Amino acid sequence: MGDNQQDKMSRRALPVAAAQEKVISFCGKLTSEFVSLSEAKGRVLAETVKAPHPYPHFRRSGMDGYAIISSDTAGCSAQTPVHLEVIDEIPCGSLPSVALVPGTAARIMTGAKVPDEADAVVMFEMTEATDGESGYYVKLKREIAAGANITPVGLELAEGDVILEAGQIISAGEISVLATFGISEVAVIRKPRVAVMATGSELLAVDEPLQDGRIRNSNTYMLESQIRDAGAEPIILNVIADDLSTARSRVLEAIEEYDLVISTGGVSVGDFDIMADLVLGDEMEMLFNKVMMRPGSVTTAAVRLGKLLFALSGNPGACFVGFELFVRPAIARMMGIEQPFLKEVEAILAADYPKINAYTRFVRGRIAVEGARLRAYPAALDESSVMITIKDSNALLVIPPTTEGVQAGELIKVLLLPGVAG
Amino acid sequence: MGDNQQDKMSRRALPVAAAQEKVISFCGKLTSEFVSLSEAKGRVLAETVKAPHPYPHFRRSGMDGYAIISSDTAGCSAQTPVHLEVIDEIPCGSLPSVALVPGTAARIMTGAKVPDEADAVVMFEMTEATDGESGYYVKLKREIAAGANITPVGLELAEGDVILEAGQIISAGEISVLATFGISEVAVIRKPRVAVMATGSELLAVDEPLQDGRIRNSNTYMLESQIRDAGAEPIILNVIADDLSTARSRVLEAIEEYDLVISTGGVSVGDFDIMADLVLGDEMEMLFNKVMMRPGSVTTAAVRLGKLLFALSGNPGACFVGFELFVRPAIARMMGIEQPFLKEVEAILAADYPKINAYTRFVRGRIAVEGARLRAYPAALDESSVMITIKDSNALLVIPPTTEGVQAGELIKVLLLPGVAG
Repeated sequence: MGDNQQDKMSRRALPVAAAQEKVISFCGKLTSEFVSLSEAKGRVLAETVKAPHPYPHFRRSGMDGYAIISSDTAGCSAQTPVHLEVIDEIPCGSLPSVALVPGTAARIMTGAKVPDEADAVVMFEMTEATDGESGYYVKLKREIAAGANITPVGLELAEGDVILEAGQIISAGEISVLATFGISEVAVIRKPRVAVMATGSELLAVDEPLQDGRIRNSNTYMLESQIRDAGAEPIILNVIADDLSTARSRVLEAIEEYDLVISTGGVSVGDFDIMADLVLGDEMEMLFNKVMMRPGSVTTAAVRLGKLLFALSGNPGACFVGFELFVRPAIARMMGIEQPFLKEVEAILAADYPKINAYTRFVRGRIAVEGARLRAYPAALDESSVMITIKDSNALLVIPPTTEGVQAGELIKVLLLPGVAG
Repeated sequence: MGDNQQDKMSRRALPVAAAQEKVISFCGKLTSEFVSLSEAKGRVLAETVKAPHPYPHFRRSGMDGYAIISSDTAGCSAQTPVHLEVIDEIPCGSLPSVALVPGTAARIMTGAKVPDEADAVVMFEMTEATDGESGYYVKLKREIAAGANITPVGLELAEGDVILEAGQIISAGEISVLATFGISEVAVIRKPRVAVMATGSELLAVDEPLQDGRIRNSNTYMLESQIRDAGAEPIILNVIADDLSTARSRVLEAIEEYDLVISTGGVSVGDFDIMADLVLGDEMEMLFNKVMMRPGSVTTAAVRLGKLLFALSGNPGACFVGFELFVRPAIARMMGIEQPFLKEVEAILAADYPKINAYTRFVRGRIAVEGARLRAYPAALDESSVMITIKDSNALLVIPPTTEGVQAGELIKVLLLPGVAG
């Protein structure tokens, strides 16, 4: 026990940013696949999409009214109105049925194609319909400028304009734009397959009866949800009891099979830390086994076959933070997202945070907007509520190393947690 | 055309809040169903969940170290150290194998059960192991207080404490908490089944070749994504061409079959507005057919059989806003969410918004945090980019009725769009 303990005690801690950098350097973009628009939500575009045609692709009426030849309204006023014969009626989706000539107009709906001969649309509410000798007339009482209420071809986008960039996450707006251009199937990065294995003979399955001295395996379910939220496909493997040779073979198999492997549990500085021993073996290249952060300082990452293994803490709070700081960005980068880290903003600390720490502390909490100012509330100040506060957080407050704590009112950095209802 | 046109022209506009209130008053909570924890992400808890046992449920060691009887350390110092015989070793998940007596200690791991006789745990790093005549000893150099590094039973939660409230959306944190308490199946509100039908003979299916004067049916796909994002199940029905009797029977069938029905298109003030006519018929109770808002003032809602029908604008921007202001809250309330509306915050308008309007305007845009101040950027000032800016927005800027526009630097209300990557 002595020597091994010594090795683990002498872990060299990396700053968080350096550890993140190391992880990201091993994340290659995965291959792509085609999905239908209905399945595209939440996926990441594999290729930049350009407009296959101009938009709008025909001269579009911006109003319900009458398509006219604007020169017919020269000198028109309330005193000297102009009457145009209505010779066509153009609903949306229909084409003009007859060519306009001077002195005529076409009733037209919003969004319908303007006849080629017309150069203006006059709003319905500005007109009066009158019955004349030979048909139905529209009475105009002012001059109409050429171009009025007509959206020209390509006003929004020309053919070939970029409409969406590779690496974009697809949500409702992107789907609307893709559908507008008739793109019914879209190339997206395939979902990373992420395996989760818990280690620790203290773990009970969630549906097992409670036993004295043992706790339920909650991290696996939490990670499953976080993995799905990050856009990847979770695969839950069996719990590994505290046995180094079993753990070694199970981990090596998982690395062969999946794109990324996470273990949870077994990284405290104790006698039964399987994963810590494993990453020190010959099969893997260890990237780091200690990070200058709380919680989760013993977060470990290693590489084999170009694939990442993360050993996250068994403590639920530390496991959650380790996932958000390291695993989520790795998944994001594998999906081709350029900026893969949690979004960082500044906020005003809303309550004193008296704890001192030599490492940066990532404190779960809530952000709230009050009079356009962002305020950050730590979820709890004492370790005791570690488990229950996971559910109440929408942000990680970044408390820098401090020997005196941080006062309410100070500006701090905050990492926003995606996928959590605000 | 005249009379009908007249009816539609005389729609009485409701304020947005009054229209939302009407909608919500018709939204009853749906029935519940059980799902496994793995399927629970994004669902809404149907019942309040109480802790079935205290947490922790056994006296837990907070450190790797030695469980001791604290009175053994009375008078202990570096000069007068105490040696305790280590008679047990307790990994996580194991139970003590022997009772401690004064003068003895048990090696214990973080998270393991503390022996009943012990009342403190001393941190491993504060000790030295020594070999003695009759076995293995631990050397202590200071007094240890009773209770040190032991988490008592029920410190975080007592049995029966509320752990999650009904109406809570389930994400990773909630799943972690449920798993901790062995709740492997959870009662959630069933997903509302929401049907979407587009109206308009101008609409091409997304995979049809482009035709002159016609546009693709993009709103259906956009709504499908918005519905899914709201937590409901979208069902896409066929496009209804502009024919009142077909539309009537199709809408009535859909209302029988689904929990909520959305139509899009056909609500501009024109001759071909099917849904507007339909809600004025005897089959439905119209809630409103005009709202004091831009875009989407002709947003219409009606009720039949206690179920809501929404007729949203065919304009993509107006359709999007109509969904977010009215349909998403309806879905949320049907799922039992207490506060169903988009989250409203204040932000500083980051650019002049010179447009005047008699109605409140909901402008798509982006919010950004700069030095803990929330700033709101309108996506575009001109109507021309209505289609393409849908994809660039994470918020709706609320521009009140104004005859002069709103200046950069003014404080405005902003509605945050959920489910859009920040």
